[in-house]
Amino acid sequence: MNAPESATPAVMAAIAGIREELCTLHAELVRYELVVWTAGNVSARVPGEDLMVIKPSGVDYDRLTPEAMVVTDLHGIPVDGGWGNPDLAPSSDTAAHAYVYRHMPEVGGVVHTHSSYATAWAVRGEPIPCVLTMMGDEFGGEIPVGPFALIGDDSIGRGIVETLSGSRSPAVLMQNHGPFTIGPTARAAVKAAVLCEEVARTVHLSRELGPLIPIDSAHIDSLHQRYQNVYGQ
Amino acid sequence: MNAPESATPAVMAAIAGIREELCTLHAELVRYELVVWTAGNVSARVPGEDLMVIKPSGVDYDRLTPEAMVVTDLHGIPVDGGWGNPDLAPSSDTAAHAYVYRHMPEVGGVVHTHSSYATAWAVRGEPIPCVLTMMGDEFGGEIPVGPFALIGDDSIGRGIVETLSGSRSPAVLMQNHGPFTIGPTARAAVKAAVLCEEVARTVHLSRELGPLIPIDSAHIDSLHQRYQNVYGQ
Amino acid sequence: MNAPESATPAVMAAIAGIREELCTLHAELVRYELVVWTAGNVSARVPGEDLMVIKPSGVDYDRLTPEAMVVTDLHGIPVDGGWGNPDLAPSSDTAAHAYVYRHMPEVGGVVHTHSSYATAWAVRGEPIPCVLTMMGDEFGGEIPVGPFALIGDDSIGRGIVETLSGSRSPAVLMQNHGPFTIGPTARAAVKAAVLCEEVARTVHLSRELGPLIPIDSAHIDSLHQRYQNVYGQ
Amino acid sequence: MNAPESATPAVMAAIAGIREELCTLHAELVRYELVVWTAGNVSARVPGEDLMVIKPSGVDYDRLTPEAMVVTDLHGIPVDGGWGNPDLAPSSDTAAHAYVYRHMPEVGGVVHTHSSYATAWAVRGEPIPCVLTMMGDEFGGEIPVGPFALIGDDSIGRGIVETLSGSRSPAVLMQNHGPFTIGPTARAAVKAAVLCEEVARTVHLSRELGPLIPIDSAHIDSLHQRYQNVYGQ
Repeated sequence: MNAPESATPAVMAAIAGIREELCTLHAELVRYELVVWTAGNVSARVPGEDLMVIKPSGVDYDRLTPEAMVVTDLHGIPVDGGWGNPDLAPSSDTAAHAYVYRHMPEVGGVVHTHSSYATAWAVRGEPIPCVLTMMGDEFGGEIPVGPFALIGDDSIGRGIVETLSGSRSPAVLMQNHGPFTIGPTARAAVKAAVLCEEVARTVHLSRELGPLIPIDSAHIDSLHQRYQNVYGQ
Repeated sequence: MNAPESATPAVMAAIAGIREELCTLHAELVRYELVVWTAGNVSARVPGEDLMVIKPSGVDYDRLTPEAMVVTDLHGIPVDGGWGNPDLAPSSDTAAHAYVYRHMPEVGGVVHTHSSYATAWAVRGEPIPCVLTMMGDEFGGEIPVGPFALIGDDSIGRGIVETLSGSRSPAVLMQNHGPFTIGPTARAAVKAAVLCEEVARTVHLSRELGPLIPIDSAHIDSLHQRYQNVYGQ
Repeated sequence: MNAPESATPAVMAAIAGIREELCTLHAELVRYELVVWTAGNVSARVPGEDLMVIKPSGVDYDRLTPEAMVVTDLHGIPVDGGWGNPDLAPSSDTAAHAYVYRHMPEVGGVVHTHSSYATAWAVRGEPIPCVLTMMGDEFGGEIPVGPFALIGDDSIGRGIVETLSGSRSPAVLMQNHGPFTIGPTARAAVKAAVLCEEVARTVHLSRELGPLIPIDSAHIDSLHQRYQNVYGQ
Repeated sequence: MNAPESATPAVMAAIAGIREELCTLHAELVRYELVVWTAGNVSARVPGEDLMVIKPSGVDYDRLTPEAMVVTDLHGIPVDGGWGNPDLAPSSDTAAHAYVYRHMPEVGGVVHTHSSYATAWAVRGEPIPCVLTMMGDEFGGEIPVGPFALIGDDSIGRGIVETLSGSRSPAVLMQNHGPFTIGPTARAAVKAAVLCEEVARTVHLSRELGPLIPIDSAHIDSLHQRYQNVYGQ
């Protein structure tokens, strides 16, 4: 099986492009040292289809190719295994990604890592306070903590969706586990994962040596508003 | 539009050289891990002209080429967009850089990062005390903190200029934001950014485990005097 | 002497494959910054033989080739020196590796490093508490501390075996020394070494700023059970 | 001037070999992140001659070539400038290196860095306690602190020699400044610099979270004795 049976040429082309992009984006997780060994993954929704593409389970980042990525439906059932192998299992976090796509239609990409500083906050169950202009820009406030949840059913996905619905933050720190980030695209979700670890680290370091100066919520609103609408090209 | 309309061949050659240099210097920010994603920038004054050159907004460091750099006037208005594109926006920090060039004629280069340890001091609003011979050499005393300021007008630039005028330090830690550094050249400002993070890190680590031994102010004067006049070739 | 005198072609082919694999795996120790200079080593059992293969003593990682690896018996006596040189001494930790292979027949690979965060716990003689889902997955509980032991006899090997026998953890933190990890294969032992440092770091960072939320032992059992039986391909 | 005027072909060949070695060794300082920008240097004695070879002042590590290294006498007076340029100044730390060679005839190499964790101990004026088997091996006890000393005369060199004479440690932490390490060869001094930072970091991390378990001095003697006489090939 090389593609979903009913896929049109346009959908197949879209999937091919997404596979390339996911390969590039997993390399960003490695470059920014957000993952070790095989412990982290990026997925992307196939726009307009009930399909997503995700990393195969337990495969080294060095061995990932576009063809390795697994296409599944939005319940995580593989419809096109990586490397043309229908038995290649998708990431063990697939159920959580799929739950997000089913319940947050505006989300086009999801990232999961165990990046060290972000996870350190998650082990204390403590949100990261918004004390950096960079946090106002990207997260629009604190980065919240989600519930403890075991892998194996919809608990993790539900925890992500309940925590992020109505929040401006694209990142949630799942308790005792690690961050999940979302975005309109997989690239935006990777950017949120990179900045989540960066701000987790900077705020951690700052608090090691004394109290932090807060930022007024009106200033946070202003930073977030400007960054989301003016920054970049 | 490929160059300021009134530019002479000599000015155009100077701009071409600056674009090359800025490309090299942004790679130094990446190498020393002072920036993630697109969050940091270097600019240079065009000597003798009311012009500066700066990174375009929101462009990945990997994609930067000399041609990508944007030439603006000293109010940050683009006069030659990067990649020959008049609509390529300069860095969102351009107004702060431009303010510095307008008010500090001795400055030839400006750098802004959110490097982690320097920013950690800025979140507490705490200057870095001068307890390292390397700090005496390069900064001639503590590294001061500048005010909280929002992006969008001259507040950041004014905060930088007011804090650094009359200081021997080429670095200021803008509260809740991150360091800005200046120098007679863009390369000197990048060196100050690298050393700012290095000393922020070393002094942070030292203070984690106990009180720091101060350095006499007369010794700091002596170190600074020697380094600024004798070091190097 | 180029091979154990009694080796069959099949054993010699197995040894050649193991030498290649060990060369690749030592590069992983370097990549994940678990070792500096020459201070860390990986070994592998030759399946079905009373033989093991290990790094030569004091040789830079950059200079390691498959041919450099030393074949010894399970008391650490060289039977085929690296680079065809019968006098090339095996790692000074060979006795500890050999002791493990003699007393734990299920072990196919052993790794020793002085990775910083794991060793930091070992200097306090403190086990790493299981507060991360990643720790439940890979270690099935806390990472235990082994006794202080001097190099030169079987003390280190005995300390490793006594601590790990009956534990689900493939890692032990030898007091004032550093981690040893085991696995069914050398690759699995390297994975355990990488994850040991990763969780040592994350739990360290978390505890710097406050108390940690524990994970129920029933949840740890569930995580470990699932990861050992379902994860990967 | 391309060589000391009185140099024999054998001495000139020795100097050429040392220049190559120093080029390689400065790259090790960069690889292990012991230095930033131009702030660190390695020197080597020319065996049997009153000569030494050292890095030129303020030159980027990327631009260093064997030919860039400066040959001086043992008072730091250049006798063969780098790149054949008699005016190329040697490292601003040359006087300290030269003092060591004049007063410690057994020393063949000297290294100076401002590596972060080692320097953090130096800012508190606190020796690093010997709580790691790796420290027993390489340093034979604690790593001592030397006095505060200004650059410009023999104060730094004298502080190094007085602290290290009669110590088993090849490293001294100069107060408010950074580590200097020595060895029978430049490579051995670089190894000591790498291990000095490694143990400074591990012991720092350990002490952040609680009290350290000491190692008996008899055990330290035993570790040091064995490592100096048995380790390696």
